Amino acid sequence: MRLRNIKGAKETVLKSSYVIENPNLYYGNWEVCFSNQNPIHVEIGMGKGRFIIENAIRYPNINFVGIEKYNSVLVKAIQQLEGKNLPNLKIISMDAKEIEQIFNQEIDTIYLNFSDPWPKKRHAKRRLTSTDFLEKYEQIFKNKKHIIIKTDNRNLFEYSITSCSCFGYHIKEISLDLYQEGRNDNIPTEYEIKFSNKGYPIYRMEIEK
Amino acid sequence: MRLRNIKGAKETVLKSSYVIENPNLYYGNWEVCFSNQNPIHVEIGMGKGRFIIENAIRYPNINFVGIEKYNSVLVKAIQQLEGKNLPNLKIISMDAKEIEQIFNQEIDTIYLNFSDPWPKKRHAKRRLTSTDFLEKYEQIFKNKKHIIIKTDNRNLFEYSITSCSCFGYHIKEISLDLYQEGRNDNIPTEYEIKFSNKGYPIYRMEIEK
Repeated sequence: MRLRNIKGAKETVLKSSYVIENPNLYYGNWEVCFSNQNPIHVEIGMGKGRFIIENAIRYPNINFVGIEKYNSVLVKAIQQLEGKNLPNLKIISMDAKEIEQIFNQEIDTIYLNFSDPWPKKRHAKRRLTSTDFLEKYEQIFKNKKHIIIKTDNRNLFEYSITSCSCFGYHIKEISLDLYQEGRNDNIPTEYEIKFSNKGYPIYRMEIEK
Repeated sequence: MRLRNIKGAKETVLKSSYVIENPNLYYGNWEVCFSNQNPIHVEIGMGKGRFIIENAIRYPNINFVGIEKYNSVLVKAIQQLEGKNLPNLKIISMDAKEIEQIFNQEIDTIYLNFSDPWPKKRHAKRRLTSTDFLEKYEQIFKNKKHIIIKTDNRNLFEYSITSCSCFGYHIKEISLDLYQEGRNDNIPTEYEIKFSNKGYPIYRMEIEK
């Protein structure tokens, strides 16, 4: 995804009380950040934030951390958060490849929603379900490793299934056409609404290790 | 699948030199049946036989055993085999639920092609990828367990992914739309040709344990 650079995006993002400027200071101490010991769920690539904000509203007893590397997208999330009071939501502006420097065995669930498919084989390591990333996640999960993946990209989904399965994850739930199932607990992302409306199948799986 | 009863089907099937009338006599001794120690691949539900016959022709150094419970379908396979000489192919007319009485740790690969989806939840145990069947397969595999599954039934495929994954199988390869991939080594079944021609996606996976 090529993004337009939005002037002043970084400043707007850092001004928000939801955004943690130096997240590595909380390494091993995120319960201090949230002032409670509730489970922590992380969305890597939160984009404009619809998914994680809706989750934070619906599940006040779960702490949510959204990670996003593009400030030009994060500003949209910050705008959506204006006037809302969600003490169980924090946002980090960073590249996910440094995630193991931010959390120390304290995460319960990771969400990967419509991640960049990095279609070229030579970029496979950059996919968020590559062995490189799965190894990073090993260091941030508390006990049971639990990842929930949604995508409309068939090739990325196929890659994720084999990569995670061969890494030792069990696939507890899978849907190859989420909108055929009529789930009423699904919280869609902005991108998901657009693509499912066009009739494209949305893939989803829930894996554990 | 409700099948027409074909008069004399059983007699026609048993007359064929490809058909093993008392397969349990070879339990633990299938290398005697084939007169060699080549790997043995089994297709459960071989139907009219296109897949396994083409395989037997293409791979003379692999022994193939086709299992099918409906003689009214098997007669079509027998017809196709007329005039062919395939010493590496045997056929068994039986219900797969007795498979562990036929083979004793001597199978390398199982093929499950377009198996009956048994859509009702109360029939789930009858699906060929249920835990009940996976436990039977444990007893017939030699070393590495290796299953290759193809189906056009999304629900059966989703069920098979979770069932096999949670049983300890790793998904080595998966395709959620086989005919988009342009594989040239794929041998289609009769049913597969019909359904892929209609544009329906064919699902395939290769799993190991």
